[in-house]
Amino acid sequence: MEEKPYSFPLENYMSRERFERIKAFSEGKDTPFLVLDLDIIKANYEALRNHFPYAKPYYAVKACPHDRVVETLRDLGSSFDVASRWELDQLLALGVPPDRMSYGNTIKKERDIAYFYEKGVRLFVTDSPSDLDKISRAAPGSKVTIRLLSEGLGADWPLSKKFGCHPDLARQLVKLSVRLGLEPYGLAFHPGSQQRDVGAWSSAITQVGMLFRWAREEANVQLKMMNMGGGFPADYVEPTDTLTQYSEDISRFIENSFKDYRPEEIIIEPGRSMAGNAGVIVSEIVNIAKKSVHERYPWVFLDVGKFGGLIETLDEAIKYPIYFEGSGKAKEIIIAGPTCDSMDILYEKWTYTMPDSAKIGDRVYVLSSGAYTQSYSSISFNGFPPLAAHILE
Amino acid sequence: MEEKPYSFPLENYMSRERFERIKAFSEGKDTPFLVLDLDIIKANYEALRNHFPYAKPYYAVKACPHDRVVETLRDLGSSFDVASRWELDQLLALGVPPDRMSYGNTIKKERDIAYFYEKGVRLFVTDSPSDLDKISRAAPGSKVTIRLLSEGLGADWPLSKKFGCHPDLARQLVKLSVRLGLEPYGLAFHPGSQQRDVGAWSSAITQVGMLFRWAREEANVQLKMMNMGGGFPADYVEPTDTLTQYSEDISRFIENSFKDYRPEEIIIEPGRSMAGNAGVIVSEIVNIAKKSVHERYPWVFLDVGKFGGLIETLDEAIKYPIYFEGSGKAKEIIIAGPTCDSMDILYEKWTYTMPDSAKIGDRVYVLSSGAYTQSYSSISFNGFPPLAAHILE
Repeated sequence: MEEKPYSFPLENYMSRERFERIKAFSEGKDTPFLVLDLDIIKANYEALRNHFPYAKPYYAVKACPHDRVVETLRDLGSSFDVASRWELDQLLALGVPPDRMSYGNTIKKERDIAYFYEKGVRLFVTDSPSDLDKISRAAPGSKVTIRLLSEGLGADWPLSKKFGCHPDLARQLVKLSVRLGLEPYGLAFHPGSQQRDVGAWSSAITQVGMLFRWAREEANVQLKMMNMGGGFPADYVEPTDTLTQYSEDISRFIENSFKDYRPEEIIIEPGRSMAGNAGVIVSEIVNIAKKSVHERYPWVFLDVGKFGGLIETLDEAIKYPIYFEGSGKAKEIIIAGPTCDSMDILYEKWTYTMPDSAKIGDRVYVLSSGAYTQSYSSISFNGFPPLAAHILE
Repeated sequence: MEEKPYSFPLENYMSRERFERIKAFSEGKDTPFLVLDLDIIKANYEALRNHFPYAKPYYAVKACPHDRVVETLRDLGSSFDVASRWELDQLLALGVPPDRMSYGNTIKKERDIAYFYEKGVRLFVTDSPSDLDKISRAAPGSKVTIRLLSEGLGADWPLSKKFGCHPDLARQLVKLSVRLGLEPYGLAFHPGSQQRDVGAWSSAITQVGMLFRWAREEANVQLKMMNMGGGFPADYVEPTDTLTQYSEDISRFIENSFKDYRPEEIIIEPGRSMAGNAGVIVSEIVNIAKKSVHERYPWVFLDVGKFGGLIETLDEAIKYPIYFEGSGKAKEIIIAGPTCDSMDILYEKWTYTMPDSAKIGDRVYVLSSGAYTQSYSSISFNGFPPLAAHILE
């Protein structure tokens, strides 16, 4: 087999200049850590506003709940998709008004709903009769958006049937909301995280269009909001269409599904597409090992792994671009994390390469790792502390 | 299909009396949390000592690093398998002497090795030439045990090829240790966590026996220690042989593999078998939902999930016994956690049941959940705090 020189398309992810800035900033800091660039968060927010001018962004806080990220988006005017009472407390402490929040988790305790209500939140996502019951008691008169089921086919981090309900049940929930004194405000869906098939929106929007019409014509209910969820991609190894392509296609889907009536409010819940490429995890090569005297693929152990923030490498679902500095031939490698857990392997099937010159102690850069990393870290697995986060200054 | 009444074999996991004690202790505490019973830790330690009287236990701290668990085992005379410098700091702070520790992680930075050496640790597990190099520089003259590769076939939480080396490389590492001024002290293996096939030990012990002989006869090295790792099972849903059966079989494997010479020291590294059944996670039913108006399997959402300590439910690998109080017909259910992540499903394929009478707000008991749970919790995913732990008093 012919050996190729190592090359890495850094410019697909950031400019060389930005990389050098991150590198300089990182010097002298103990690895591993996440560096977050707030300028990128701002640029991503603006890009989403420009591509979806008709849609209000509700940032999915869970993607990257760093205070500085939340503050940045607060100042830009973003609203927020909130997953738990602890996120609510954080947002309130940062001065986000409750009318810029949606309690987006369909799994909630009645006392949590009461807590949100008491703090002024009036918009709740739901998908089951039992949850509607709880909302009617703990948050009387509130607005509810009913989430439709999507299994997220085509998404790198797909959805399963955990959230949402089929249209038949959604119809009943619209009617039940009215009976329970709630306001059936709209419909929600989520096409699947890192959704690389824009067709997923077509499917969901078609259902939403049909149900808006049914509500108006047959249930005497004027739904107002379409919540299109998240799913817009970040830049990982596997290619995606441009945001422009998503925006054009989704506009057409909306045109096609809403002929006579357009939802009063359309919202999106970007998380990954807002924070993903704003982060770089700086790591170090801890060891390079072979299992036999001669072995084709050396094992490269980093000081960050599945339990230190890279849990989305499960089943190699999310393929982060991993940049090794150095030169020489490209060596095919297996990449694993530093804990004693056998599951803590990052990439064994998908082929990653490093340059010949890479050695133990070298720094390694996990790009586009701003979303679903730091807050996923385990509290102390194997004694390792959670991933540290720094804001690029 | 005939409907059966709900029944749960509680007595397979604990006495009714102990359960009532845990239940009473749990009252008034906010769920979810882990309750740890130190009496069970003690009983497990004694049982391992009785079944393997020739083997010294090195408790795998990572399984359940709670201070009180470590103190209990320290007082019983246990030694410790240490995964990181943070675990070392914890053990030292709790007064464990360094000669009762083995640095068991084969993935280590040179500065971590130096730190262990400085604190007095002289026993290191290794599996690669580059790691040996680092040990020889940072911990000169230390004892090394060389870990053999086992893929852990038959284990519920298998091993992959991440750790260990093939015998051919092990031979070279024995010789390299001598050249580097280290003491090639023994061989190590790990049969795979929750290893339900005792044959895995036969395979590994046979290799160790051969290599001990080779070292003595051909390399002029007298190896002294056999480290048999962990792998002894805890009580989950799927049945395992008794510890007595493991002990009898493993004794025979050792007899068969060491005819003329018996290792001076044999050690085991129990983690799961020491802490697993000492813990119960107390949770609450947050919601019960269907996706359609008529659906066979309701979704039962607990307030603990994959990110709150139950990550070993990945691929449904570890099947915790989950006890619902109540009565009535047995209902087949899907069980999921409380976060907005689609991956946070516990059991969808393996059939769990709950009684007809179970309702939102009921407490649910995840038994045998003392190992690899609390320390795996994410720091703040979806805003949820890490799993709390209480010692049963």
